[in-house]
Amino acid sequence: MLTTIYTKLESYFNEMVLHRRHLHQNPELSFKETETAAYISSFYKSLQIPFRKNVGGNGIVATIEGNLEGPTIALRADFDALPIEEENDVPYRSRNKGVMHACGHDGHTAALMVLAKVLWEERHSFPGTIVLLHQHAEEYAPGGAKSMIEDGCLNGVDAVFGTHLWASEPTGKIQYRTGPIMAAADRFEITIQGSGGHGAQPHKTRDSILIGTQVVNTLQQIVSRRINPLEPAVVSVGSFIADNAFNVIADKATIIGTVRTFSEDVRTQIEKEIENVVKGLSVIHDSSYDYVFDRGYPAVVNEALSTELFVNVVKENLPGILLEEAEMQMGGEDFAYYLQHVPGTFFFTGAKPKGVELPFPHHHPRFDFDEDAMLVAAKCLVTIALSYKHNQEKVTLHV
Amino acid sequence: MLTTIYTKLESYFNEMVLHRRHLHQNPELSFKETETAAYISSFYKSLQIPFRKNVGGNGIVATIEGNLEGPTIALRADFDALPIEEENDVPYRSRNKGVMHACGHDGHTAALMVLAKVLWEERHSFPGTIVLLHQHAEEYAPGGAKSMIEDGCLNGVDAVFGTHLWASEPTGKIQYRTGPIMAAADRFEITIQGSGGHGAQPHKTRDSILIGTQVVNTLQQIVSRRINPLEPAVVSVGSFIADNAFNVIADKATIIGTVRTFSEDVRTQIEKEIENVVKGLSVIHDSSYDYVFDRGYPAVVNEALSTELFVNVVKENLPGILLEEAEMQMGGEDFAYYLQHVPGTFFFTGAKPKGVELPFPHHHPRFDFDEDAMLVAAKCLVTIALSYKHNQEKVTLHV
Amino acid sequence: MLTTIYTKLESYFNEMVLHRRHLHQNPELSFKETETAAYISSFYKSLQIPFRKNVGGNGIVATIEGNLEGPTIALRADFDALPIEEENDVPYRSRNKGVMHACGHDGHTAALMVLAKVLWEERHSFPGTIVLLHQHAEEYAPGGAKSMIEDGCLNGVDAVFGTHLWASEPTGKIQYRTGPIMAAADRFEITIQGSGGHGAQPHKTRDSILIGTQVVNTLQQIVSRRINPLEPAVVSVGSFIADNAFNVIADKATIIGTVRTFSEDVRTQIEKEIENVVKGLSVIHDSSYDYVFDRGYPAVVNEALSTELFVNVVKENLPGILLEEAEMQMGGEDFAYYLQHVPGTFFFTGAKPKGVELPFPHHHPRFDFDEDAMLVAAKCLVTIALSYKHNQEKVTLHV
Amino acid sequence: MLTTIYTKLESYFNEMVLHRRHLHQNPELSFKETETAAYISSFYKSLQIPFRKNVGGNGIVATIEGNLEGPTIALRADFDALPIEEENDVPYRSRNKGVMHACGHDGHTAALMVLAKVLWEERHSFPGTIVLLHQHAEEYAPGGAKSMIEDGCLNGVDAVFGTHLWASEPTGKIQYRTGPIMAAADRFEITIQGSGGHGAQPHKTRDSILIGTQVVNTLQQIVSRRINPLEPAVVSVGSFIADNAFNVIADKATIIGTVRTFSEDVRTQIEKEIENVVKGLSVIHDSSYDYVFDRGYPAVVNEALSTELFVNVVKENLPGILLEEAEMQMGGEDFAYYLQHVPGTFFFTGAKPKGVELPFPHHHPRFDFDEDAMLVAAKCLVTIALSYKHNQEKVTLHV
Repeated sequence: MLTTIYTKLESYFNEMVLHRRHLHQNPELSFKETETAAYISSFYKSLQIPFRKNVGGNGIVATIEGNLEGPTIALRADFDALPIEEENDVPYRSRNKGVMHACGHDGHTAALMVLAKVLWEERHSFPGTIVLLHQHAEEYAPGGAKSMIEDGCLNGVDAVFGTHLWASEPTGKIQYRTGPIMAAADRFEITIQGSGGHGAQPHKTRDSILIGTQVVNTLQQIVSRRINPLEPAVVSVGSFIADNAFNVIADKATIIGTVRTFSEDVRTQIEKEIENVVKGLSVIHDSSYDYVFDRGYPAVVNEALSTELFVNVVKENLPGILLEEAEMQMGGEDFAYYLQHVPGTFFFTGAKPKGVELPFPHHHPRFDFDEDAMLVAAKCLVTIALSYKHNQEKVTLHV
Repeated sequence: MLTTIYTKLESYFNEMVLHRRHLHQNPELSFKETETAAYISSFYKSLQIPFRKNVGGNGIVATIEGNLEGPTIALRADFDALPIEEENDVPYRSRNKGVMHACGHDGHTAALMVLAKVLWEERHSFPGTIVLLHQHAEEYAPGGAKSMIEDGCLNGVDAVFGTHLWASEPTGKIQYRTGPIMAAADRFEITIQGSGGHGAQPHKTRDSILIGTQVVNTLQQIVSRRINPLEPAVVSVGSFIADNAFNVIADKATIIGTVRTFSEDVRTQIEKEIENVVKGLSVIHDSSYDYVFDRGYPAVVNEALSTELFVNVVKENLPGILLEEAEMQMGGEDFAYYLQHVPGTFFFTGAKPKGVELPFPHHHPRFDFDEDAMLVAAKCLVTIALSYKHNQEKVTLHV
Repeated sequence: MLTTIYTKLESYFNEMVLHRRHLHQNPELSFKETETAAYISSFYKSLQIPFRKNVGGNGIVATIEGNLEGPTIALRADFDALPIEEENDVPYRSRNKGVMHACGHDGHTAALMVLAKVLWEERHSFPGTIVLLHQHAEEYAPGGAKSMIEDGCLNGVDAVFGTHLWASEPTGKIQYRTGPIMAAADRFEITIQGSGGHGAQPHKTRDSILIGTQVVNTLQQIVSRRINPLEPAVVSVGSFIADNAFNVIADKATIIGTVRTFSEDVRTQIEKEIENVVKGLSVIHDSSYDYVFDRGYPAVVNEALSTELFVNVVKENLPGILLEEAEMQMGGEDFAYYLQHVPGTFFFTGAKPKGVELPFPHHHPRFDFDEDAMLVAAKCLVTIALSYKHNQEKVTLHV
Repeated sequence: MLTTIYTKLESYFNEMVLHRRHLHQNPELSFKETETAAYISSFYKSLQIPFRKNVGGNGIVATIEGNLEGPTIALRADFDALPIEEENDVPYRSRNKGVMHACGHDGHTAALMVLAKVLWEERHSFPGTIVLLHQHAEEYAPGGAKSMIEDGCLNGVDAVFGTHLWASEPTGKIQYRTGPIMAAADRFEITIQGSGGHGAQPHKTRDSILIGTQVVNTLQQIVSRRINPLEPAVVSVGSFIADNAFNVIADKATIIGTVRTFSEDVRTQIEKEIENVVKGLSVIHDSSYDYVFDRGYPAVVNEALSTELFVNVVKENLPGILLEEAEMQMGGEDFAYYLQHVPGTFFFTGAKPKGVELPFPHHHPRFDFDEDAMLVAAKCLVTIALSYKHNQEKVTLHV
């Protein structure tokens, strides 16, 4: 069965490329992807594949039931673009000024669309149900995943899988990881309210710059002392602003930064430890403060059994694929939310442009990827989707 | 002789007030005081008192020789105004929008002009020579004193005296002090050049905000550890700017502040200690820096013998004056430069508006002073000027 | 073949226990294990197994050649004890006052001895050569591994395996890990040489306590800023000593601490970063310093292929064993040195005393372990030793 | 009258020296000066001068009434010695091992005794009453002054004067100062209670060394930011102790230091600010602390009118004396307590050994002073004592 599907995917590769290039030429910003959503909808409509649109916003959810008993597996592709002016000189260059598919979401979507077509054609021969999650707004918090879930996109789903085309690795390589693979990325803002005055009379003031600098210094000890050294975590201050005359002691200082973590416990602890630092320094200086900790996406935490199963079935069915354990990535992904509800795994699909040594990074105006990788992505996704039930009992505790 | 002069000063008090109010209505900013200078010049010209104009800029220096042997004593009054919109509702309110005599320099000038007139009239009866220094640009560094000295205003001068009308103290009180009375006020600017990057990858950066905050913290120890605790000194940071996205590590941070000292040794030491702090932190962080230390006016350091003599002769000749030791002031004055060349003293002449409990401070849009204080200032200045030689031998080491 | 060996091991279990208890009753400190070495030597001698003694000190290396072609595999057991007074009330309690096998090395040695006996008996039926490394002095740097290697114990060896009985995990569980599994544990000592004086005159001193406290504070940023957040690392200060009268400023402060890392690059970087911190603070304070960084054992870094092979062959041959990925451990092991020369893996063999919920930790006066675990250790070691060649070609890049 | 007294003092100089040398040979530690007290008592007894002994401990108070109306003036000399082994090779070297008059109190006492004898002889010719305060225990807190005051030694006293022989200044020089002349010297002790643990697992601990070092750092800002820069103040840490194994995180750190101030407000503020620092850091680190602030002697604050009068009458009556304004001294003196009850002044009497360029400092095993200075001290004390009433009306507000 998988062999048939692989062959069909290969034979429809040209269509995949056409979809990708159409999407690439017509990129839309997060939460504004109405034309993209219409394009995907009309695709499903034309094939008569059942789907629901406007799921949690611009999301589209198509469902294909196999004719055999089996689990319900969701596959996700995101379809929003970025506020970047494309600098590539290619025939399929973006037609929307200042907007660009600079992260490969066009490829994700094209791969999933063609995979859906193949699955629809093969629906009589496979077990279980496949749910195609076309997600809007991955690039911009709060993201589309959360609202799509709230709108029921995971109802009845047993497991979820997704991938990101990864231009730094060669086509043919898949990077997987059990447990945390992408970080939670949060933002915090601290306002120190001291009491200003003349630079020559510090004793009549509460020097907010001094307080603020002690906050920044003391934040260092959170990672160095408070967090388990085996748990990666970052607390970085990106902005410190207290702009006054040289001879005036500032009454206010603003500190803005980011926190990166891979576990909710650490994340919650850091949120609290930052406040402890600020609170303690306010006691020392008899000053006051505001503290806001804005949670971005949580960490993407791959489930162990699903990940092992994924590795095993890819190894078994796609022997040409090079499987490699991924390093954890400090970047974020709202695929994290799906994994908070159902098991599954998120993996990286190597997509380095052929003949390029150092490809342009994601989010670069000259970013591009190897379109062949879309085929790899589609094959891997369908492999795990259709093997999920079959192999489930093989899984043991150890990866 | 002094009695005659006191009486004449009293009888010319109205003229003093008229001059003051004319100046108050026609204030000019530092280095732009051409009309004021013309007003003073025409005054000396009309009296046929010898004077030199355009001394070191807009400065005017008049000279009155007594017919007896004696020392040459300079008396100084400054005549520039401030960029402040006057909010007083008085008949002599400023006519120049956004410019105001908000520090009493109009009073200094009026008192010295009328004193000059009296001295001119009495020139046959006093010993020595009196030099009237009408100085421009006290409010704005580099000030007028320096260039007037370079232009010879102190040539042949044996001692110099000056006063500031002081609205916080009542008329009739004189505050004096041996040694430092007003601080050196300097400005420093430190630019930390680190190396920026993504907030999630601090190890690939040199975090200039962290470096900068450690600079600010470590600056505290200069006053607490490096300076003799008996030497007053202040190092204050007024501005800390590193303005980036929350998830970007800053490559540059700018720190601007002020230093206040009362001795050249301490001043020079602090200039060096600040750089040591920045240099050491650059070693720790493998970063670089720029450091600029801009010297403002030096400290006003009153000479001991002149100050004691001043106290003694005022006590003797003006028994109604209340003499009091002044606290050191953290503000600056370019009278400091005169005292670097010749002995002398600078004192505060109480000038609190009558019936007012809490007068508006100097540099306030509603600042005003008690015009009677001009008479006190003129009497004290002439008293020390004409007693200088006579009493010099009485002076001993101890105040 | 393995089945035969397993059966024999089981049948000799009583002997294993006797050896272990003999060793437990006669513990010797690191580098002083002459009686223990004699005991092991006489065992090999009595069985006529070829061995070399005094290898790199008290080490003993026995060699058993199978009669088939095959790789040479080393298995290591350490045999030193600790300066701890045993508090267990057991028949085999330590007879050497103040010395105790409180870390399970007695069990390691007993297991390896009996395994050697079995292998000797079965030498005609297995391929390759087994080298038994009985290592002295694991507990005390510089350890025995280094000198045994220098004395040739790894000559001709293709791979090395070792285990630690692990009292926190139940018998029957094996914990493995690819890559770093135990940390490099180093010691540093910083002496700040300031210049002392009276507490009331800080400006005449170089306050070594202040310098030292700024060192400790600034060390925090090494982990928080300088090291890749995905690389676990610890810099801890354990001792800060500057002991003076309350009113005397200290001329010397001593700071002693430890560094834990899992990679040589990070280790070397931290060694350098610590000195940067101290050097920079010496610039700030015009003080001097001594800095010593004593390298303890390097990190134990398990080779990927050997580890995968180990997991696979244990899974295949010992289905009753529960395999689990180990967390990295911050403790050190001089097994690290063997892995710097040949491939191999080091694993933990669960040995929690039966019926005990919270076992006493290693190095505790009441530490003990489940003797059944020795059998598990022996079985796992022989399984990988005799499967090494056979399975080698199966190994692919991915674990 | 003063002339007669001066002459008599000169004629009894030999006796003064004899007393001083007797005392020097028989030094006694603070609160243990029973023989010294007996010596002084028998002196007064033999002259039939009325006195009270055991005043507030070993103190002796003699009273001499003049036969004219006048104020009651107290003159104070302290008589305790130090725990120092004398290294001077002089005929009057200390006979008490390990005890030495190394601060000149022997001279203070000898001068006051002989002055008392002269005043007794001249009691019919002077106005007012002279109270001779022979104070025990100046060197060791809580000192003798406090208990002597509580025991009534200042009852009826209008003013108090005292001096210290000052070996760094030449004989013939008197140093005076209005306002604070010697500092309050306090001691503080902070114990940080964190929670210890393994150096490799900082996150399971509360690192008391880190907390302590942040305390020491943050203490710097008290002087640099919280205290008026015109108010001299010192906060110094003399001892930081947290002594553990290099790989153990300390659960306790002890910080001991001193505070020097010249005003009660600043003293009280610093006591509070130190606690704020410790309290705030305990909030940050979730640790606890103990904090003790032990007050030593308060600052010696000379009253303005008495000081001016002292300067004037010495200038008038002892023209050979060189009067000089003293710098504030960071050392302490329990003369401070007398000045909290009655007006008066404390001055330094130059006593540099003749022919010595760099005399040994006070409290040095080779300390000595010029005995001629005792005569200067006695003359100055009696001059102010007998001029107090007479000149009182001359005093004005200004010094």
